Amino acid sequence: MKDSHTLGVVGCALPDRESWARPSNTLDLHLWLRLLTCSTLVENRVRSLMRSQFETTLPRFDLMAQLADAPRGLKMSELSRRMMVTNGNITGITDQLERDSLVERVKVDTDRRSCIIRLTAKGRQSFRSMANAYQNWVGESFQKMPLERRQLLFELLGELKAAGLADQTPPGSA
Amino acid sequence: MKDSHTLGVVGCALPDRESWARPSNTLDLHLWLRLLTCSTLVENRVRSLMRSQFETTLPRFDLMAQLADAPRGLKMSELSRRMMVTNGNITGITDQLERDSLVERVKVDTDRRSCIIRLTAKGRQSFRSMANAYQNWVGESFQKMPLERRQLLFELLGELKAAGLADQTPPGSA
Repeated sequence: MKDSHTLGVVGCALPDRESWARPSNTLDLHLWLRLLTCSTLVENRVRSLMRSQFETTLPRFDLMAQLADAPRGLKMSELSRRMMVTNGNITGITDQLERDSLVERVKVDTDRRSCIIRLTAKGRQSFRSMANAYQNWVGESFQKMPLERRQLLFELLGELKAAGLADQTPPGSA
Repeated sequence: MKDSHTLGVVGCALPDRESWARPSNTLDLHLWLRLLTCSTLVENRVRSLMRSQFETTLPRFDLMAQLADAPRGLKMSELSRRMMVTNGNITGITDQLERDSLVERVKVDTDRRSCIIRLTAKGRQSFRSMANAYQNWVGESFQKMPLERRQLLFELLGELKAAGLADQTPPGSA
């Protein structure tokens, strides 16, 4: 399949994660590096804001977000799958959040080796204010793009995910 | 502006980084979490392949990629800006690559405090084989999406970047 593509002008702006791709590279490589650039730009911004406004990190926020809608809590393995990182990562973040009384580990009667992690009342309250701010920051990042283009982008990313990405078990989260 | 949007069926597949968003959240939040999910899926896969096939990490590969087209090398600050991470990160990765004789630090005559980092011949050769594999892996991730949809996605991400994201200096890379 021929990958004819032209590089948009934005590729010529500030050098970033997509700058190293050459015109001779495939569209897929350019597409991937641009996806990565957009993702890194937003992530760097919200990471910085999360630190300055709430003195916390994105992995801590992400873990709390996954627990927010699971009043009975989630197993480590389920958290790991949803956050798409290894169990080892989850353990460290959970330890920190537990020290700050934002989450608690609850023993499972049926399985002595495993436990459930859930938000405490303090964690739930803390998450709510962070989530509001987070949603606003993301809105600021995207606001200059017309709504119908954002909707189309949302659809296309859904197609990308459905068209194969979802089949690929993230190796880190086994 | 009203953010009417429907969640695609892919949101109902395996739980992942976008699962915690609720229908009451804005389109922008859903869009961001989907972008992050797609980016994480591809990144986890190439990270795992890079480790198993080349015994290296993505940050090491990214740094070499930025140097590949700069035969005279790049300053630490320029590398940091292109990789969109802090100078501190770059120093650690450079140290590792230097130990493996893949990059070298070159003194700048005009500025005693700064130096230029460039690929060695070994580094250049190593990068070429990794870059070929990397491009193939990315192609595999995207191949089930029709070409014209991938082209449209590439354009839309360009619009997103141009429409404001690019104005936001990534706080980590100052």
